[in-house]
Amino acid sequence: MATLQELMRQMLAGEPLALARLITRIEKEGAEAVEVLREASQHAGRGYRIGFTGPPGSGKSTIVDQLTATIRGEGQGRPTVGIIAVDPSSPFTGGALLGDRIRMEQHYKDPGVYIRSMGSRGSHGGLPHVTQRVATLLEASGKDYILIETVGVGQTELDVMEVADTVVVVLVPEAGDTIQTMKAGLMEIADVFVVNKADRDGADRLAREVEQSLHLSARVSEWTPPVLLTKAARGEGIQELREAIGKHREYAERSGELARRRQRRRTTQFLTTVEEKVSAALRELIEGNGDLKGVLERVQSGEVDPYSAAIDVVSNRDILHKWASALEKRQLR
Amino acid sequence: MATLQELMRQMLAGEPLALARLITRIEKEGAEAVEVLREASQHAGRGYRIGFTGPPGSGKSTIVDQLTATIRGEGQGRPTVGIIAVDPSSPFTGGALLGDRIRMEQHYKDPGVYIRSMGSRGSHGGLPHVTQRVATLLEASGKDYILIETVGVGQTELDVMEVADTVVVVLVPEAGDTIQTMKAGLMEIADVFVVNKADRDGADRLAREVEQSLHLSARVSEWTPPVLLTKAARGEGIQELREAIGKHREYAERSGELARRRQRRRTTQFLTTVEEKVSAALRELIEGNGDLKGVLERVQSGEVDPYSAAIDVVSNRDILHKWASALEKRQLR
Repeated sequence: MATLQELMRQMLAGEPLALARLITRIEKEGAEAVEVLREASQHAGRGYRIGFTGPPGSGKSTIVDQLTATIRGEGQGRPTVGIIAVDPSSPFTGGALLGDRIRMEQHYKDPGVYIRSMGSRGSHGGLPHVTQRVATLLEASGKDYILIETVGVGQTELDVMEVADTVVVVLVPEAGDTIQTMKAGLMEIADVFVVNKADRDGADRLAREVEQSLHLSARVSEWTPPVLLTKAARGEGIQELREAIGKHREYAERSGELARRRQRRRTTQFLTTVEEKVSAALRELIEGNGDLKGVLERVQSGEVDPYSAAIDVVSNRDILHKWASALEKRQLR
Repeated sequence: MATLQELMRQMLAGEPLALARLITRIEKEGAEAVEVLREASQHAGRGYRIGFTGPPGSGKSTIVDQLTATIRGEGQGRPTVGIIAVDPSSPFTGGALLGDRIRMEQHYKDPGVYIRSMGSRGSHGGLPHVTQRVATLLEASGKDYILIETVGVGQTELDVMEVADTVVVVLVPEAGDTIQTMKAGLMEIADVFVVNKADRDGADRLAREVEQSLHLSARVSEWTPPVLLTKAARGEGIQELREAIGKHREYAERSGELARRRQRRRTTQFLTTVEEKVSAALRELIEGNGDLKGVLERVQSGEVDPYSAAIDVVSNRDILHKWASALEKRQLR
């Protein structure tokens, strides 16, 4: 059994098995999780993160696959790629889903591509937080690009996109209803629009509608998201997508937008990690401390309602300072 | 503009407009939220909560509608019904979705039925937590039954079911794959199974498969979930479903299972509310306190990684006790 130090060393060297094991530990949120992330984040920050979202069936996976092949073929460096496939509607995590197994076959012999599926068993901060952490590990393991793909367009998916440096929204002619797209919040988060399956009826009209909405929405930014037409299944338009992403990256770096996004991300990571530690200590204290155990029992019996009891606890000087001390001691273990 | 006290009084008297306004305040998590819940939960606890989950298109809404009509027709008392329609894939909340507008028309003239849609803009504890709170308000407003319906079967939906006293899992013959159902965790949470659209091919086979799986799974309980066949669109099987739910309620009350579920729920409410208050105070302190602001700035600039900074904060005696004091003072406002 490899020690944590060995796993870390192997992961930093790009060893996929060590990477997989460490991701699993991060997902399980063991005591080691923050230590692993603390070390990993010192080696992260060089990767570029591209998020893909849009309605189910819009062909996001195909686009991600094609783009992976395009990126892998670039120059002498052959940039490496990590893919995170996020499905908030799936209760499964960690293992490969069927779609990914098919994918893996395609990239099987390429050690420069690593694919990870994530379901909805989230951590304290939820799926976006776990995605953030997995992306940090992928960066630490040396991946040049992290492609994050989400299923569907609910709130979780929009939140996951907060983790990306460039957000690509994929639409299909059938989606049709531009107003629906706008309502779902996609207009606000897209840096690049793709109308995929562009050989189908209505593709041009949809692209025009999206462009018009963009002009009307008057985003306060010098970047206007381009609207591209692709036929991903045949590889058409992928090179153009690659270039559009590159242009957005240039803009984001030049304008300071990238720095702002990453700063926001670091703030969230910091606050969520503190909250996580504090909550864990809190639960331990409530279950272990005599006074608090009494409160908990009165809540459980229904003698006092949970909301009043909660306010009493956070208003009680004595309990709060005991808790602060417990929290401090907890870190020394 | 009605004061909060007036709204509370009207809500407790069953006034739907006041109820709607208070739910909105709860969802927005203003400073008043916990106060409203503290008061409401003293009037709650009499309602019985029935949860409905299963794959999209299985006819859950139709079943909920029919069951509502059945319950409303019972005896002299004409029990009142509150419906919470939870769609974690929708970013919208509060307003009525299309399906609910159609529904509302049906129950429009019946003041004994209140319907509320909820999307995924969750609070601190996420969608299950908000659902719990809305159910508390519905109970306080005098609803005898709370029917909770979720879309899909992801983790969020399973978590929402934790809020229910009786869980009904709705399947359709097309769903077919019993193993998939078991994997998705439905076997573990169901108190009653319904195979809807029972006139379609495969309904009997699906019902038999579910029954067999139940026998094999050896649940540690004297309650074996019945498997019912319904054709909800024609109202067939709804009376039987009503009776099965009633039997489960009797069992749950007699065996202590209901008390256990409600106790677990109160514990979660208590802990989540404490965490919520603590997190809010924490963010305020970090943004307002001189020392901590410095830490935050170093995190934002990338000078220190977010995980190390988080550990430093929760290991710092001085910061922790300042925070405890700030938390205490915060409650006095």
